[in-house]
Amino acid sequence: MLPVLTVFKWSPDGGKGLARDMRVRWALEEVGQQYDVRFVTFKEMKEPPHKARQPFGQIPAFEQDGVKLFESGAIIHHLAQVHPGLLPGDPDGRARAVTWMFAAVSTVEPPIVEREQADFTDPGQPWFSKERLAFLDDRIRARLADLSLYLGEREWLEGAFTAGDLMMVMVLRRADAWLLEEFPSLVAYVRRAESRPAYQRAYAAQNALYSGEPPPVSEW
Amino acid sequence: MLPVLTVFKWSPDGGKGLARDMRVRWALEEVGQQYDVRFVTFKEMKEPPHKARQPFGQIPAFEQDGVKLFESGAIIHHLAQVHPGLLPGDPDGRARAVTWMFAAVSTVEPPIVEREQADFTDPGQPWFSKERLAFLDDRIRARLADLSLYLGEREWLEGAFTAGDLMMVMVLRRADAWLLEEFPSLVAYVRRAESRPAYQRAYAAQNALYSGEPPPVSEW
Repeated sequence: MLPVLTVFKWSPDGGKGLARDMRVRWALEEVGQQYDVRFVTFKEMKEPPHKARQPFGQIPAFEQDGVKLFESGAIIHHLAQVHPGLLPGDPDGRARAVTWMFAAVSTVEPPIVEREQADFTDPGQPWFSKERLAFLDDRIRARLADLSLYLGEREWLEGAFTAGDLMMVMVLRRADAWLLEEFPSLVAYVRRAESRPAYQRAYAAQNALYSGEPPPVSEW
Repeated sequence: MLPVLTVFKWSPDGGKGLARDMRVRWALEEVGQQYDVRFVTFKEMKEPPHKARQPFGQIPAFEQDGVKLFESGAIIHHLAQVHPGLLPGDPDGRARAVTWMFAAVSTVEPPIVEREQADFTDPGQPWFSKERLAFLDDRIRARLADLSLYLGEREWLEGAFTAGDLMMVMVLRRADAWLLEEFPSLVAYVRRAESRPAYQRAYAAQNALYSGEPPPVSEW
Protein backbone atom coordinates (compact mmCIF):
# COMPACT_ATOMS: atom_id res chain seq x y z
CA MET A 1 0.00 0.00 0.00
CA LEU A 2 1.12 3.55 -0.67
CA PRO A 3 1.83 5.64 2.41
CA VAL A 4 -0.89 8.15 3.31
CA LEU A 5 0.07 11.66 4.36
CA THR A 6 -2.51 13.73 6.23
CA VAL A 7 -2.36 17.42 5.29
CA PHE A 8 -4.37 20.66 5.60
CA LYS A 9 -7.59 20.82 3.58
CA TRP A 10 -6.61 24.44 3.03
CA SER A 11 -3.11 25.65 3.87
CA PRO A 12 -2.94 29.08 5.53
CA ASP A 13 0.11 29.95 3.40
CA GLY A 14 -1.82 29.45 0.16
CA GLY A 15 0.60 26.75 -1.01
CA LYS A 16 4.00 28.37 -0.47
CA GLY A 17 5.41 25.19 1.04
CA LEU A 18 5.50 26.44 4.64
CA ALA A 19 3.13 23.83 6.10
CA ARG A 20 5.05 20.96 7.67
CA ASP A 21 3.77 18.32 5.25
CA MET A 22 6.07 19.95 2.68
CA ARG A 23 9.07 18.52 4.53
CA VAL A 24 7.69 15.00 4.22
CA ARG A 25 6.58 15.48 0.60
CA TRP A 26 10.11 16.60 -0.24
CA ALA A 27 11.65 13.58 1.51
CA LEU A 28 9.24 11.23 -0.29
CA GLU A 29 10.25 12.79 -3.62
CA GLU A 30 13.96 12.50 -2.74
CA VAL A 31 13.57 8.73 -2.26
CA GLY A 32 11.13 8.26 -5.14
CA GLN A 33 8.23 7.03 -3.02
CA GLN A 34 4.71 7.80 -4.27
CA TYR A 35 2.03 8.57 -1.68
CA ASP A 36 -1.64 9.30 -1.15
CA VAL A 37 -2.99 12.33 0.66
CA ARG A 38 -5.79 12.68 3.21
CA PHE A 39 -7.21 16.12 3.99
CA VAL A 40 -8.30 17.48 7.36
CA THR A 41 -9.97 20.81 8.12
CA PHE A 42 -8.84 22.85 11.13
CA LYS A 43 -11.93 21.52 12.95
CA GLU A 44 -11.23 17.89 12.04
CA MET A 45 -7.61 18.26 13.21
CA LYS A 46 -8.85 18.61 16.80
CA GLU A 47 -11.35 15.71 16.64
CA PRO A 48 -10.80 12.10 17.82
CA PRO A 49 -10.22 10.40 14.43
CA HIS A 50 -7.29 12.69 13.66
CA LYS A 51 -6.02 12.75 17.23
CA ALA A 52 -5.77 8.95 17.03
CA ARG A 53 -3.19 9.60 14.30
CA GLN A 54 -1.70 12.76 15.78
CA PRO A 55 -2.27 13.22 19.54
CA PHE A 56 -1.53 16.96 19.39
CA GLY A 57 -3.97 17.62 16.55
CA GLN A 58 -1.35 18.80 14.07
CA ILE A 59 -0.34 17.93 10.52
CA PRO A 60 1.38 16.02 9.01
CA ALA A 61 0.52 12.46 10.05
CA PHE A 62 1.85 9.43 8.18
CA GLU A 63 0.50 5.89 7.85
CA GLN A 64 1.81 2.90 5.95
CA ASP A 65 1.14 -0.81 6.47
CA GLY A 66 -0.20 -0.27 9.97
CA VAL A 67 2.56 2.00 11.28
CA LYS A 68 1.24 5.43 12.30
CA LEU A 69 3.76 8.21 12.73
CA PHE A 70 3.71 11.95 13.31
CA GLU A 71 6.26 14.79 13.66
CA SER A 72 7.88 15.64 10.34
CA GLY A 73 11.36 14.89 11.72
CA ALA A 74 10.32 11.42 12.87
CA ILE A 75 8.52 10.60 9.62
CA ILE A 76 11.58 11.61 7.60
CA HIS A 77 13.84 9.65 9.96
CA HIS A 78 11.62 6.59 9.31
CA LEU A 79 11.75 7.10 5.53
CA ALA A 80 15.54 7.27 5.81
CA GLN A 81 15.58 3.84 7.49
CA VAL A 82 13.71 2.14 4.65
CA HIS A 83 15.04 4.08 1.62
CA PRO A 84 18.56 5.18 0.69
CA GLY A 85 19.20 8.84 -0.07
CA LEU A 86 18.30 10.78 3.07
CA LEU A 87 21.00 9.76 5.55
CA PRO A 88 24.62 8.66 4.96
CA GLY A 89 25.42 4.97 5.09
CA ASP A 90 28.21 5.24 7.66
CA PRO A 91 27.17 5.40 11.33
CA ASP A 92 29.14 8.56 12.19
CA GLY A 93 27.77 10.41 9.16
CA ARG A 94 24.24 9.31 10.06
CA ALA A 95 24.69 10.53 13.61
CA ARG A 96 25.89 13.94 12.40
CA ALA A 97 22.96 14.24 9.99
CA VAL A 98 20.48 13.32 12.74
CA THR A 99 22.15 15.98 14.90
CA TRP A 100 21.20 18.61 12.33
CA MET A 101 17.64 17.29 12.15
CA PHE A 102 17.27 17.86 15.88
CA ALA A 103 19.10 21.20 15.70
CA ALA A 104 16.64 22.37 13.04
CA VAL A 105 13.48 21.64 15.03
CA SER A 106 14.80 22.17 18.55
CA THR A 107 17.25 25.09 18.28
CA VAL A 108 16.59 27.04 15.06
CA GLU A 109 12.83 26.64 14.57
CA PRO A 110 11.40 27.68 17.98
CA PRO A 111 12.39 31.37 17.82
CA ILE A 112 11.24 31.55 14.18
CA VAL A 113 7.83 30.08 15.01
CA GLU A 114 7.52 32.29 18.08
CA ARG A 115 8.02 35.37 15.90
CA GLU A 116 5.57 34.09 13.31
CA GLN A 117 2.95 33.45 16.00
CA ALA A 118 3.48 36.94 17.46
CA ASP A 119 2.31 38.45 14.19
CA PHE A 120 -0.95 36.54 14.61
CA THR A 121 -1.50 36.65 18.36
CA ASP A 122 0.00 39.92 19.61
CA PRO A 123 -1.94 42.67 17.75
CA GLY A 124 -4.66 43.96 20.06
CA GLN A 125 -3.18 42.25 23.13
CA PRO A 126 -1.97 44.27 26.13
CA TRP A 127 1.56 42.96 25.55
CA PHE A 128 1.79 44.05 21.93
CA SER A 129 5.00 45.98 21.48
CA LYS A 130 7.38 46.69 18.64
CA GLU A 131 10.20 46.27 21.13
CA ARG A 132 9.12 42.67 21.69
CA LEU A 133 9.09 41.96 17.97
CA ALA A 134 12.61 43.41 17.72
CA PHE A 135 13.68 41.24 20.67
CA LEU A 136 12.29 38.17 18.91
CA ASP A 137 14.06 39.15 15.69
CA ASP A 138 17.35 39.36 17.57
CA ARG A 139 16.87 35.86 18.96
CA ILE A 140 16.43 34.57 15.41
CA ARG A 141 19.48 36.55 14.24
CA ALA A 142 21.62 34.88 16.89
CA ARG A 143 20.70 31.42 15.58
CA LEU A 144 21.14 32.42 11.95
CA ALA A 145 24.53 33.99 12.69
CA ASP A 146 25.74 30.79 14.34
CA LEU A 147 24.42 28.63 11.52
CA SER A 148 25.96 30.93 8.90
CA LEU A 149 29.32 30.83 10.70
CA TYR A 150 29.23 27.03 10.75
CA LEU A 151 28.13 26.73 7.13
CA GLY A 152 30.93 28.96 5.84
CA GLU A 153 31.86 27.80 2.35
CA ARG A 154 30.15 24.43 2.73
CA GLU A 155 27.61 23.40 0.11
CA TRP A 156 25.65 21.28 2.63
CA LEU A 157 25.95 20.93 6.40
CA GLU A 158 27.87 17.63 6.19
CA GLY A 159 29.43 17.16 2.76
CA ALA A 160 26.53 15.65 0.81
CA PHE A 161 22.85 16.60 1.07
CA THR A 162 21.07 14.82 3.97
CA ALA A 163 17.78 14.93 5.85
CA GLY A 164 19.56 17.40 8.14
CA ASP A 165 19.74 19.90 5.28
CA LEU A 166 16.15 19.16 4.32
CA MET A 167 14.88 19.95 7.82
CA MET A 168 17.13 23.01 8.23
CA VAL A 169 16.13 24.53 4.90
CA MET A 170 12.44 24.00 5.64
CA VAL A 171 12.89 25.80 8.97
CA LEU A 172 14.85 28.67 7.41
CA ARG A 173 12.11 29.18 4.81
CA ARG A 174 9.73 30.07 7.66
CA ALA A 175 11.91 32.98 8.80
CA ASP A 176 10.97 36.41 7.45
CA ALA A 177 12.77 36.90 4.14
CA TRP A 178 14.27 40.25 5.16
CA LEU A 179 15.85 38.62 8.21
CA LEU A 180 17.28 35.71 6.24
CA GLU A 181 18.68 38.18 3.69
CA GLU A 182 21.04 39.53 6.35
CA PHE A 183 22.88 36.20 5.87
CA PRO A 184 23.66 35.79 2.14
CA SER A 185 25.28 32.37 2.58
CA LEU A 186 22.06 31.07 4.15
CA VAL A 187 19.99 32.53 1.30
CA ALA A 188 22.28 30.74 -1.18
CA TYR A 189 22.00 27.53 0.84
CA VAL A 190 18.18 27.69 0.74
CA ARG A 191 18.26 28.43 -3.01
CA ARG A 192 20.55 25.43 -3.64
CA ALA A 193 18.11 23.19 -1.83
CA GLU A 194 15.08 24.66 -3.61
CA SER A 195 16.71 23.92 -6.97
CA ARG A 196 16.70 20.16 -6.30
CA PRO A 197 14.21 18.42 -8.61
CA ALA A 198 12.67 16.55 -5.65
CA TYR A 199 11.99 19.85 -3.88
CA GLN A 200 10.40 21.29 -6.98
CA ARG A 201 8.11 18.30 -7.47
CA ALA A 202 7.02 18.41 -3.83
CA TYR A 203 6.44 22.17 -3.98
CA ALA A 204 4.37 21.88 -7.15
CA ALA A 205 2.24 19.08 -5.69
CA GLN A 206 1.23 21.07 -2.60
CA ASN A 207 1.03 24.39 -4.44
CA ALA A 208 -1.48 22.94 -6.89
CA LEU A 209 -3.84 22.22 -3.98
CA TYR A 210 -3.85 25.66 -2.41
CA SER A 211 -3.02 28.22 -5.06
CA GLY A 212 -6.61 28.98 -6.09
CA GLU A 213 -9.09 31.34 -4.48
CA PRO A 214 -9.18 30.59 -0.72
CA PRO A 215 -12.43 29.04 0.50
CA PRO A 216 -14.31 30.76 3.38
CA VAL A 217 -12.25 30.46 6.61
CA SER A 218 -14.96 28.21 8.07
CA GLU A 219 -14.00 25.60 5.47
CA TRP A 220 -10.24 25.67 6.16
CA MET B 1 38.05 5.93 25.10
CA LEU B 2 35.17 7.01 27.33
CA PRO B 3 32.74 9.47 25.77
CA VAL B 4 33.14 13.07 26.94
CA LEU B 5 30.07 15.12 27.77
CA THR B 6 30.44 18.92 27.88
CA VAL B 7 28.28 20.49 30.60
CA PHE B 8 27.81 23.77 32.48
CA LYS B 9 30.61 24.73 34.88
CA TRP B 10 27.79 25.99 37.08
CA SER B 11 24.20 25.05 36.32
CA PRO B 12 21.64 27.86 36.77
CA ASP B 13 19.21 25.38 38.37
CA GLY B 14 21.66 24.51 41.14
CA GLY B 15 21.66 20.84 40.17
CA LYS B 16 17.95 20.03 39.90
CA GLY B 17 18.48 18.11 36.67
CA LEU B 18 16.92 20.72 34.37
CA ALA B 19 20.03 21.40 32.26
CA ARG B 20 19.95 19.39 29.05
CA ASP B 21 23.03 17.30 29.87
CA MET B 22 20.78 15.50 32.39
CA ARG B 23 18.96 13.83 29.48
CA VAL B 24 22.21 12.42 28.13
CA ARG B 25 23.51 11.45 31.57
CA TRP B 26 20.28 9.51 32.15
CA ALA B 27 20.56 7.75 28.79
CA LEU B 28 24.20 6.86 29.49
CA GLU B 29 23.16 5.37 32.85
CA GLU B 30 20.30 3.44 31.22
CA VAL B 31 22.77 1.71 28.88
CA GLY B 32 25.54 1.35 31.48
CA GLN B 33 28.07 3.52 29.67
CA GLN B 34 30.58 5.42 31.82
CA TYR B 35 31.64 8.88 30.67
CA ASP B 36 33.92 11.80 31.36
CA VAL B 37 32.78 15.38 31.78
CA ARG B 38 34.22 18.65 30.44
CA PHE B 39 33.08 21.94 31.95
CA VAL B 40 32.42 25.22 30.15
CA THR B 41 31.53 28.59 31.65
CA PHE B 42 28.82 30.74 30.04
CA LYS B 43 31.65 32.78 28.48
CA GLU B 44 33.47 29.74 27.14
CA MET B 45 30.22 28.39 25.62
CA LYS B 46 30.23 31.28 23.14
CA GLU B 47 33.93 30.99 22.21
CA PRO B 48 35.45 29.16 19.21
CA PRO B 49 36.73 26.00 20.95
CA HIS B 50 33.24 25.15 22.22
CA LYS B 51 31.49 26.34 19.06
CA ALA B 52 33.63 23.85 17.13
CA ARG B 53 31.81 21.21 19.20
CA GLN B 54 28.44 22.95 19.38
CA PRO B 55 27.85 25.59 16.65
CA PHE B 56 25.05 27.29 18.64
CA GLY B 57 27.12 27.62 21.82
CA GLN B 58 24.89 25.41 23.95
CA ILE B 59 25.35 22.38 26.18
CA PRO B 60 25.49 19.39 26.03
CA ALA B 61 28.08 18.37 23.46
CA PHE B 62 29.27 14.78 23.08
CA GLU B 63 32.50 13.34 21.73
CA GLN B 64 33.68 9.76 21.41
CA ASP B 65 36.33 8.26 19.14
CA GLY B 66 36.32 11.26 16.82
CA VAL B 67 32.56 11.64 16.42
CA LYS B 68 31.31 15.00 17.68
CA LEU B 69 27.60 15.36 18.31
CA PHE B 70 25.26 17.90 19.86
CA GLU B 71 21.50 18.24 20.58
CA SER B 72 20.43 15.98 23.42
CA GLY B 73 17.92 14.17 21.18
CA ALA B 74 20.58 13.37 18.59
CA ILE B 75 23.12 12.23 21.18
CA ILE B 76 20.57 9.90 22.76
CA HIS B 77 19.53 8.64 19.31
CA HIS B 78 23.20 7.84 18.65
CA LEU B 79 23.57 6.03 21.99
CA ALA B 80 20.48 3.99 21.07
CA GLN B 81 22.18 2.86 17.86
CA VAL B 82 25.22 1.46 19.66
CA HIS B 83 23.65 0.17 22.89
CA PRO B 84 20.46 -1.81 23.54
CA GLY B 85 17.93 -0.43 26.01
CA LEU B 86 16.80 2.93 24.66
CA LEU B 87 14.82 2.03 21.53
CA PRO B 88 12.81 -1.11 20.68
CA GLY B 89 14.39 -3.71 18.42
CA ASP B 90 11.55 -3.86 15.90
CA PRO B 91 11.51 -1.16 13.20
CA ASP B 92 7.92 -0.02 13.80
CA GLY B 93 8.49 0.28 17.53
CA ARG B 94 11.69 2.23 16.93
CA ALA B 95 9.87 4.59 14.59
CA ARG B 96 7.13 5.24 17.16
CA ALA B 97 9.71 5.88 19.90
CA VAL B 98 11.62 8.31 17.65
CA THR B 99 8.28 10.04 16.97
CA TRP B 100 7.96 10.78 20.69
CA MET B 101 11.55 12.04 20.85
CA PHE B 102 10.72 14.61 18.18
CA ALA B 103 7.33 15.39 19.74
CA ALA B 104 9.07 16.12 23.04
CA VAL B 105 11.54 18.67 21.66
CA SER B 106 9.49 20.07 18.80
CA THR B 107 5.90 20.18 20.10
CA VAL B 108 5.89 20.01 23.91
CA GLU B 109 9.13 21.76 24.86
CA PRO B 110 8.92 25.06 22.91
CA PRO B 111 5.96 26.57 24.82
CA ILE B 112 7.48 25.42 28.13
CA VAL B 113 10.83 27.04 27.35
CA GLU B 114 9.10 30.20 26.10
CA ARG B 115 7.31 30.53 29.43
CA GLU B 116 10.52 29.87 31.35
CA GLN B 117 12.36 32.51 29.35
CA ALA B 118 9.56 35.04 29.91
CA ASP B 119 10.23 34.90 33.63
CA PHE B 120 13.81 35.94 32.92
CA THR B 121 13.39 38.35 30.02
CA ASP B 122 10.02 40.05 30.46
CA PRO B 123 10.23 41.85 33.82
CA GLY B 124 11.07 45.50 33.18
CA GLN B 125 10.34 45.23 29.45
CA PRO B 126 7.58 47.30 27.83
CA TRP B 127 5.77 44.10 26.89
CA PHE B 128 5.68 42.66 30.40
CA SER B 129 2.12 41.65 31.16
CA LYS B 130 0.42 39.11 33.38
CA GLU B 131 -2.01 38.49 30.54
CA ARG B 132 0.90 37.33 28.38
CA LEU B 133 2.10 34.92 31.06
CA ALA B 134 -1.45 33.51 31.32
CA PHE B 135 -1.57 33.18 27.53
CA LEU B 136 1.73 31.25 27.60
CA ASP B 137 0.42 29.03 30.40
CA ASP B 138 -2.63 28.18 28.30
CA ARG B 139 -0.42 27.15 25.39
CA ILE B 140 1.41 24.74 27.70
CA ARG B 141 -1.92 23.44 29.10
CA ALA B 142 -3.10 22.60 25.59
CA ARG B 143 -0.03 20.40 25.00
CA LEU B 144 -0.23 18.78 28.42
CA ALA B 145 -3.95 18.05 27.97
CA ASP B 146 -3.29 16.31 24.64
CA LEU B 147 -0.40 14.32 26.08
CA SER B 148 -2.43 13.34 29.14
CA LEU B 149 -5.34 12.25 26.93
CA TYR B 150 -3.00 10.08 24.86
CA LEU B 151 -1.22 8.62 27.90
CA GLY B 152 -4.49 7.55 29.58
CA GLU B 153 -3.77 4.44 31.63
CA ARG B 154 -0.50 3.67 29.84
CA GLU B 155 2.62 3.20 31.95
CA TRP B 156 4.89 4.47 29.17
CA LEU B 157 4.11 6.10 25.81
CA GLU B 158 4.65 2.88 23.82
CA GLY B 159 4.42 -0.17 26.06
CA ALA B 160 7.98 -0.38 27.42
CA PHE B 161 10.19 2.56 28.47
CA THR B 162 12.04 4.13 25.52
CA ALA B 163 14.13 7.19 24.71
CA GLY B 164 10.80 8.81 23.78
CA ASP B 165 9.73 8.64 27.44
CA LEU B 166 13.15 9.84 28.56
CA MET B 167 12.94 12.95 26.37
CA MET B 168 9.28 13.63 27.22
CA VAL B 169 9.81 13.33 30.97
CA MET B 170 12.82 15.65 30.84
CA VAL B 171 10.73 18.23 28.97
CA LEU B 172 7.80 17.91 31.40
CA ARG B 173 10.13 18.47 34.36
CA ARG B 174 10.86 21.96 32.98
CA ALA B 175 7.19 22.98 33.17
CA ASP B 176 6.13 24.85 36.30
CA ALA B 177 5.13 22.27 38.92
CA TRP B 178 1.73 23.90 39.58
CA LEU B 179 0.88 23.61 35.88
CA LEU B 180 1.93 19.98 35.65
CA GLU B 181 -0.11 19.23 38.77
CA GLU B 182 -3.30 20.03 36.85
CA PHE B 183 -2.63 16.69 35.08
CA PRO B 184 -2.22 13.99 37.75
CA SER B 185 -1.49 11.24 35.22
CA LEU B 186 1.46 13.25 33.90
CA VAL B 187 2.76 13.81 37.44
CA ALA B 188 2.57 10.04 38.04
CA TYR B 189 4.31 9.40 34.71
CA VAL B 190 7.19 11.72 35.66
CA ARG B 191 7.44 10.11 39.11
CA ARG B 192 7.61 6.62 37.54
CA ALA B 193 10.47 7.74 35.37
CA GLU B 194 12.27 9.47 38.22
CA SER B 195 12.16 6.25 40.23
CA ARG B 196 14.29 4.40 37.67
CA PRO B 197 17.73 3.62 39.13
CA ALA B 198 19.45 5.04 36.03
CA TYR B 199 17.62 8.36 36.49
CA GLN B 200 18.61 8.49 40.14
CA ARG B 201 22.28 7.83 39.40
CA ALA B 202 22.31 10.51 36.70
CA TYR B 203 20.53 13.00 38.95
CA ALA B 204 22.93 12.39 41.81
CA ALA B 205 25.97 12.81 39.54
CA GLN B 206 24.91 16.23 38.28
CA ASN B 207 23.44 17.34 41.61
CA ALA B 208 26.75 16.68 43.35
CA LEU B 209 28.42 19.23 41.06
CA TYR B 210 26.03 22.13 41.62
CA SER B 211 24.38 21.72 44.98
CA GLY B 212 26.88 23.76 46.99
CA GLU B 213 27.08 27.52 47.42
CA PRO B 214 26.81 29.17 43.96
CA PRO B 215 30.01 30.87 42.79
CA PRO B 216 29.86 34.56 41.72
CA VAL B 217 27.79 34.87 38.52
CA SER B 218 30.93 35.96 36.65
CA GLU B 219 32.27 32.43 37.20
CA TRP B 220 29.19 30.57 35.90
